[in-house]
Amino acid sequence: MGIAVGMSGSGGLPETAAVLVVRRAVREWVAARGGRAPVVVGLSGGADSLALVAGAVAEAGPVTAVVVDHRLQDGSDAVARRAVAQALGLGCVDGLVLPVEVGRAGGVEAAARVARYAALESVRDGRPVLLGHTLDDQAETVLLGLARGSGGRSIQGMTAWKTPWGRPLLGVRRAQTVRMCADLGLTVWDDPHNSDPGYTRVRVRNEVLPLLEDVLGGGVAEALARTAGQLREDGAVLDMYAAELLRAARSERPEAQQSAAAPSGTGDTCPSTLSIEILATAPPALRRRAVRAWLTEQGISGLMNAHLQAIDELVRNWRGQGGVAVAGGGRAHRLVVAREHGTLTVRAQSRLDAT
Amino acid sequence: MGIAVGMSGSGGLPETAAVLVVRRAVREWVAARGGRAPVVVGLSGGADSLALVAGAVAEAGPVTAVVVDHRLQDGSDAVARRAVAQALGLGCVDGLVLPVEVGRAGGVEAAARVARYAALESVRDGRPVLLGHTLDDQAETVLLGLARGSGGRSIQGMTAWKTPWGRPLLGVRRAQTVRMCADLGLTVWDDPHNSDPGYTRVRVRNEVLPLLEDVLGGGVAEALARTAGQLREDGAVLDMYAAELLRAARSERPEAQQSAAAPSGTGDTCPSTLSIEILATAPPALRRRAVRAWLTEQGISGLMNAHLQAIDELVRNWRGQGGVAVAGGGRAHRLVVAREHGTLTVRAQSRLDAT
Repeated sequence: MGIAVGMSGSGGLPETAAVLVVRRAVREWVAARGGRAPVVVGLSGGADSLALVAGAVAEAGPVTAVVVDHRLQDGSDAVARRAVAQALGLGCVDGLVLPVEVGRAGGVEAAARVARYAALESVRDGRPVLLGHTLDDQAETVLLGLARGSGGRSIQGMTAWKTPWGRPLLGVRRAQTVRMCADLGLTVWDDPHNSDPGYTRVRVRNEVLPLLEDVLGGGVAEALARTAGQLREDGAVLDMYAAELLRAARSERPEAQQSAAAPSGTGDTCPSTLSIEILATAPPALRRRAVRAWLTEQGISGLMNAHLQAIDELVRNWRGQGGVAVAGGGRAHRLVVAREHGTLTVRAQSRLDAT
Repeated sequence: MGIAVGMSGSGGLPETAAVLVVRRAVREWVAARGGRAPVVVGLSGGADSLALVAGAVAEAGPVTAVVVDHRLQDGSDAVARRAVAQALGLGCVDGLVLPVEVGRAGGVEAAARVARYAALESVRDGRPVLLGHTLDDQAETVLLGLARGSGGRSIQGMTAWKTPWGRPLLGVRRAQTVRMCADLGLTVWDDPHNSDPGYTRVRVRNEVLPLLEDVLGGGVAEALARTAGQLREDGAVLDMYAAELLRAARSERPEAQQSAAAPSGTGDTCPSTLSIEILATAPPALRRRAVRAWLTEQGISGLMNAHLQAIDELVRNWRGQGGVAVAGGGRAHRLVVAREHGTLTVRAQSRLDAT
C-alpha cells in the first residue's frame, strides 16, 4: 500500500456518459475551491465513493484514499483492503485503512459516523476530505429532516463544502456512480446495511422515495435536493439578520438588570442576558434563530422545538411562568432559561425550579 | 332554509374531547382576529367542514353556511341540501346552496377549486369565509409542494388567514373532526373523490403519509405542519428584505440605461429596470425573491425554477447570452427578460430572440 500503480493523472478513463457526469461534478467542485490541490477521499468500497475516487484522480490534485474499517461485520478488513487496492489501481498516490472502535452511544449508525469522521479528520493533514454523498443521499436526508419538523434548518440537507468536508457529487444521481463503476469494470461492494430495513434511511430509500416518485410523477429526488439548496441560501440570509438581532438584544440592557446581574448567584456561569423588548418586537423567524444561537454559544445542547417554543412564550406571552429547563453541555448544574428584570437570562437551576 | 332551528349560541354542544379541541381552535382563531363577528363557512357536508360549522356557531358570530354544488356527481344537489339542513340544525342563521359550472381548464380538481372559491367570494358580503382544512390537509399540501421543488415557498402550505379566507382548523387532526361529528350524531358525507386514487392528493393521503408515519416513527403530519408554519415565518422575513433589495435595485440606474430607456422600442411596456450591480452583490435568496416579485408586478406569470435560474445567470454569470423568454399574463407579445446597459429589463420579444 502507498504506491500508485496503473493509470495516473486525468488519462485512462473511458469517456462514457456516466464518467463525464461524475468528472464534470468533481471538476466544478475543484474549480469553485481554487483549483487542483491534494485531497483525501473517504472510501467505503461502494459505488459512490469508488466513482468519486476515480473522478478525483482525474480532476483534483493527488488523491489519498482512506478506508475506515468500522469492524462491525466479519471480513470488513478484507473489504477495506480490496477497496484500497482498487483506489491505487485508479491512480491514487496513497491509500490506507483506518480501523476504528465504534461505540453504542446514540445508536450504532450515529456512533459509526462519529468514529468515521474523527478517523478521516485525524489523517487529513490540512487537506480537504471528499465524501461520496449523492443527490439521492441528499433527498433521503431532506425527508429524514422533515420528520423532525424543526423548520427549514432540518431540511437544508448537506452542503457541498463545510471545512474540511467536501461533497462534489451532491448533484449526481446514485445510478450514475453505479454505471460509472460498471463502465470502469470495478467490482463494487454492497454494504449489507444498505438493504437492512432496520435502518430508517434504508426504508426511506427503498420504500418512501420510490412511492413518492410514483405518486408525484417523478423528479422527486431532484426536487428535494433543489429545495434543500434554496433553503440553505434562505438560512444563510436569516442567520445573518439573526446575528444582527442578537447583537442588538445583547447591547440593550435595562438598568434594573445591569445592577442585578452581579449578585445573581449563578457562580461561574456568565451573566449573558438579552433584552426582552428587542426580542419581542423582532420577527418570529429571527427571534427563534437568535435565541438558538445565544443558547448554543453558552454550551446548551439538545435544544428541541418544545424548548424554543417555551422560551418564545417567556418573551411574547409572559404570565409570570417560571423558567425553561435546558441541558448545558459539560456543566455541573442543570440550567434554566428565565425571564428576569426585562431580560432573558440563563442561570443554574435552583431547588425552587425543580418543584 | 334561512331560519335557525334547534340549538343556538354556544350552548347545546356536548363537552367531548373532540368538541373541545375544535372549539378551542375556532375560539383562538376568532380571538386573534378581533373577536366575534359574522362569518361564512364553506361547507361540503364532510366531517371537517361540518365540525367547523358547529365550532363556529359556538365560538364565532352569526354563521352562514354555504354549500357549493359542483354538479360533478349524480345526486350532488341532494348532498348539498342535506348539508345545509344539518348546518341550520347546528344553529347557523342562514344556509344556502350555490350551484356552479366547473370547467376543464387545468384539470377538474383545479377547475372545481376555482369555481368554488369564486362562488364563496360572491356571497360573502364583507365577511370572512372559513374553510375546514385540517392539519392533515396541511401535511398533504406540504408533500405535494415538495414535488415542485421550488424551495421554501412551495412547502409553506396554507395560512390560517389570508383575506378573506380563514382556516381555523389547520392545527386540528382530521380524526378529531370525524370524532366530533360522531359525538354530535351527525351523518357525514364521504366524497367519493376522497378515495379515488386517480387524484394525486388522495394517494398522498392514503399511501404516502401512512408509509412515512410507519417508517419515520409517527408524528409526521404534525412535523410537516410545523415545518410549514416555520417556513411561512421565514418567508415573511425574506420577503421583507427582498422588497428592500428591490427598492434599492430600482432606484440605482446607470447613466447609460437612463438615456437608453426611452427609445428602447418596447412600445407600451413600462421600461422598469433593475441594477445588475445591486442584484449581483445581494445574497442569492434575496435576489431570487426580488426578481420574482419584480416580474410578478409586471404581470409575468407561470415562472418556473428554470426561468429564475436562467435570469440569475444573466446577473451573475453573463457571457453575452441572450434574454430569457417569459409569458406575460394578458399581454399581446411574448416577453423577454434581458441584460442591457448594466440593468435587467423586460421587453417585448423581437424576431432576433426567436432564432
